[in-house]
Order: sequence, then structure tokens, then C-alpha cells
Amino acid sequence: MEKTDKILDLFKNDKDAYHSGEEISASLGISRQALWKHIEKLRETGYAIEAVPHLGYKLLGVPDRVLAPEIKWHLNTKTLGKTVYSYEAVGSTNNIAYKLAEEGAREGTIVIAEEQTKGKGRLGRSWISPDASGIYLSCILRPEILPNEVPAITLVAAVSAVKAIREFSGIKALIKWPNDIIIADRKAGGILTELKAEMDRVNFAVLGIGINVNTKKSNLPKGATSLKEESKSSRDFSRVDLIRAFLEAMDREYLKFKKSGFSAIRSELKSYSCTLGRYVKIATSNGKKVQGKATDINKSGALVIKLDNGTKQLFLSGDVTLLR
Amino acid sequence: MEKTDKILDLFKNDKDAYHSGEEISASLGISRQALWKHIEKLRETGYAIEAVPHLGYKLLGVPDRVLAPEIKWHLNTKTLGKTVYSYEAVGSTNNIAYKLAEEGAREGTIVIAEEQTKGKGRLGRSWISPDASGIYLSCILRPEILPNEVPAITLVAAVSAVKAIREFSGIKALIKWPNDIIIADRKAGGILTELKAEMDRVNFAVLGIGINVNTKKSNLPKGATSLKEESKSSRDFSRVDLIRAFLEAMDREYLKFKKSGFSAIRSELKSYSCTLGRYVKIATSNGKKVQGKATDINKSGALVIKLDNGTKQLFLSGDVTLLR
Repeated sequence: MEKTDKILDLFKNDKDAYHSGEEISASLGISRQALWKHIEKLRETGYAIEAVPHLGYKLLGVPDRVLAPEIKWHLNTKTLGKTVYSYEAVGSTNNIAYKLAEEGAREGTIVIAEEQTKGKGRLGRSWISPDASGIYLSCILRPEILPNEVPAITLVAAVSAVKAIREFSGIKALIKWPNDIIIADRKAGGILTELKAEMDRVNFAVLGIGINVNTKKSNLPKGATSLKEESKSSRDFSRVDLIRAFLEAMDREYLKFKKSGFSAIRSELKSYSCTLGRYVKIATSNGKKVQGKATDINKSGALVIKLDNGTKQLFLSGDVTLLR
Repeated sequence: MEKTDKILDLFKNDKDAYHSGEEISASLGISRQALWKHIEKLRETGYAIEAVPHLGYKLLGVPDRVLAPEIKWHLNTKTLGKTVYSYEAVGSTNNIAYKLAEEGAREGTIVIAEEQTKGKGRLGRSWISPDASGIYLSCILRPEILPNEVPAITLVAAVSAVKAIREFSGIKALIKWPNDIIIADRKAGGILTELKAEMDRVNFAVLGIGINVNTKKSNLPKGATSLKEESKSSRDFSRVDLIRAFLEAMDREYLKFKKSGFSAIRSELKSYSCTLGRYVKIATSNGKKVQGKATDINKSGALVIKLDNGTKQLFLSGDVTLLR
């Protein structure tokens, strides 16, 4: 842990108390002068720290930024978020995480940014990622699965995101198979899983998730929404709290998936689906297009479409449009 | 083209002639002094260049090295080998090609080395790659296919390698599904395909191939062999010529595959297979093991195993041992 993280930990563990400079310096084994420099560094990052002569320091407020120590603080996970890299602006968190994974970063490593200048969606599309209003997070996973099982990772993340959003905000988020998070028929989030693989093993997967949290509709593409736009409250949501809720949910769901496979999350996925039971159009990246009723998500995570002529077709991925 | 490549081109286009320094310098638009430096550079690389006063220069011999200009010279391909990076010793040609692909290298770019110090096989195994005796080549491909179609790339390369070896040496090489090249029941080559992908598209694939060409048995692992060990000739094979034969074969087969899919190469693959019709043991990377008769390679490239109880199982990858 860095010294500044330790100071924050001291403050947070006894929120209402003043902590004397003497006490903190002694506990960290540093000089009063060094402590003062760390306090200044924290203030520059946005932490509001009061200093009262003869009493000491007190933490008055934390910045509304997705900072690593805020995300990691007493995070209740086994794997996810043990290492967190947080950035101001990046091109794409997935690209950074992919490079870290190639260099050997451990499973569960998180990359997060306030803003993405080249946020990525599926199939080379862009993901609008305005500054300090959404969650733009990537996670390095190293599951011992075959490449054709990787689509399940996207579904595990979708279930985790929807659970986290519901618990955190009460908003009834749904999943549009395979990778969209939907609120009130509008897109509030999306997942992009990228992988490095051989034929019979996955070297690693990078799970990227974008959630529009406090983003104003005017900053979003058509058909998109954000948690704040769909909530009754005028207050901003804490992105750090939602990130923590997502990481804790994903940590649990991913562990279940690693133990028992996709079946472990299938029924929950189906219960959160806004696709099942609907008449849909699906277009695949190799140019196939069909219409029919989405009747099931099968044991492998494939969407089952019942065509008008009664035959059923399976899809492992594709763009779904809900028709009626 | 580099100046040295242009000089080689001049020599090769009229092999028996002496080329005057004046003529070459004029044709390249450089000084006699600069020409002399290029000639020295070529000699250092191993080219035998005679210089006769009043007559000029003549190419007497090319080095037995896998040099880019030798591989590219009048290579009859549409896509493969337009760009060739050749190295002395590298860790792994696949790793270098993967990085180049991430940086945007075009389809067909080749990475080749005299020696690999960390040659890779499937599932993190090593591929013994002693200096100047085998082919260690990686090729960047950008096929517009789904990730689950990528195993076919390995099979396309296997067919191409076997065709090239047969045409080049007359040796009856066979394919042990999915990725081994077999001569007289021993392993003479292998293929490792790695990919970067999303759920519904392949960003790129790196096709790595290793062929034991002139390698002595004492330098090979148990059960392995080389073309030279299996040939009656005591002469070394030209690795450059075999590389060129492979690239030309692969260029044709890959084009067929891109046009018509795996079906375009399926019957040839089956005819070169040493697996079909045999009683085999297959072990998959997720721990599954079965025994039975290998009866077919299906439309997707999967191996069909008929178990003792008569039921059939499909395998997309795995380690096959030929039992009887």
C-alpha cells in the first residue's frame, strides 16, 4: 500500500476523529515534513482534508473520481480489484488492459478511467465515454476454458452488472442478449469481451464494461440513457460505489461460473432478459439475418430463435432488435 | 525495395553475366563508392560476390539463410510474403508477429527466424528450434470469419505444408489432426494458431509453423524427425525453397478457404490424414479422454470419433495418439 493510501485508511477507519500529525507520522514511520507532503498530494487529488492546530487532520470529503484507493478500500472480493489502475483520460481501457495482460498482469486486474477518447464497442463500433460521468472499466480474466466458451463471460458480466445496478439504485435494469444493459427500453450500458487464444485454450480475456451513470442525455447517442436520467433523484450517483458493487457481484458470479460453468448463471440471466418472449430481428456479423421469436437462451448461452415456419435456430452472437 | 535487394535482383536476372560497377551504379542512381559499401554489406550477410577488374561483379552463391530478399524474390503469391521480416535468433516468431499485427501489419506479413530460443507449441509447450536447420515461420492473417471458425486456419496450413513438402521433396508427409505434420509416423512439423478476437469477429490470427528440415535426430525430441532424416539424399534441403513452396501453396489454399470456407480444402485434408481410419486416444485440454475409431473430419473441421459402444463424438481440438 502506498503511504497516501495508508493515511486515507487511518482517516476512514475513524471518520469523525481528528488525527494528530504526531500519531499519523509515528504510525507510518515518516517525518512530520513527509506527512505534510503526502497530505498536500491527497489535497491535489481532490481530497478535502481539514488541518486544525493542536487537534490534527480530518478527512472531510473524497473527490468524485474513480480513484484506485477508493475502489479498493475494504473491497469484498476474492479475485477482482486486488490491483486497480485508474486513469484520467485514456484511449480505451480495454486496450490498456490487453497490454497489461500480455505483460502478465494477474487475473482480476482492473483498468478504469474518467474518460475514454476512443471507447470501443462491439465490431469496431465506438462507445461514447464522456468525462467523469460514466463507468469505463476493464478487467483481466484468465479462465481455464475453451475459446468457444468465452461468450459466457460476457453473459456473466451482464448478470453481475444488472444485479449491481438493481441493488445499488433500485432501477430495474435488464439484459438485451448478448451484451447490452437496458433501462426502460434504452441502452444504459454495454460489454465488450476481447480475448487472446489458441485453438484449445484462452490465454486471457479482457472484459470491458461501460455504464452511463450520471451522463446527460444530450451527451449520449440516440436511443441511449443513463442511470441518472432514469432515476427520480436529482443527485448524482457515486460511480465508485457502483463500481464496487459491480466488482463484488462479478467476483461472486465469475467464481460460480468457474466452478460450475454457464449453467450456474443461466436462470438468473434468463430472468433479467428483455429479449426472451419477444419477436426479434437478429443480424450476425457474417451477414445472416432472420426474424422470429426469442424463446430461450440455451445451455451454451446461445439465443434460440423460433422462426415463423416453426424451425428453431441458434445464435452465438449478433445484433438483436426487439420488434414487438 | 532496398538498394541491396535491387543489386541482388540485377545479379539474379542475368546470372552468368558480370555486371560492371558503372552499370549497376547508374541503374541505382548511386556512386561507385556507395555501391562498394552495399556489395560489402551483402558479402557480410553471406552472399559470395566475385569482383573482377574491368569485368565487374558476379553473384557466385547465396547464403543458406532464410533471408527476406531470397524468400520474396519473384514469389508467386497474392497475399502472403509481400512483407517479410527475417531474423537471426528470436524468442518466438509468433510473439513478434502478434505484436506486429497489433500495430496494424497487413495480412500476409511473414516473420521468420534462423533460430527460436523460446519456440512455442500448443498449450504452452515448447517447440525445439535449433539454429539454421528448420523453418520457424509466422504469418499474419486477417480473415473475416467468426472465432469458432479459426481452427480451420490450422487445417488450411496443414494441407498447404504437406502439399509443399510433397512437391518439394517427394516425401509422403501426412497430417495428424489437428496440427501435426507426420513423416513415417514421426513428427516433422507442427502448427500453432493464435488469435485476437471479440465474440463475433477475429481481429487477426497468427499462423505459426515449424518444420524440421535439415535437423539432426540428435537435436530433436524423442518421436520427432526431419525431412533430411527421412530422405535418401545426404544433401541439405534449401529451406528458402521450401518456405517459398509453402507460402505459394498456403496463398492458394487460404484464398480458396476465404472464398468457399472449409469445404474447399476438406477432401484434400482427409486424403492426407494419417488419423482417419485409425483407432485413437484423444485427450482434450479440459481433461476429457476417450478412445475410439477416427471415422471422419466433419464439415466444420471437427474430428469424429466412433466409441466402442457405437456412439459418435465430435472434437474441435485435442491431443490424438494413434493406437492401432
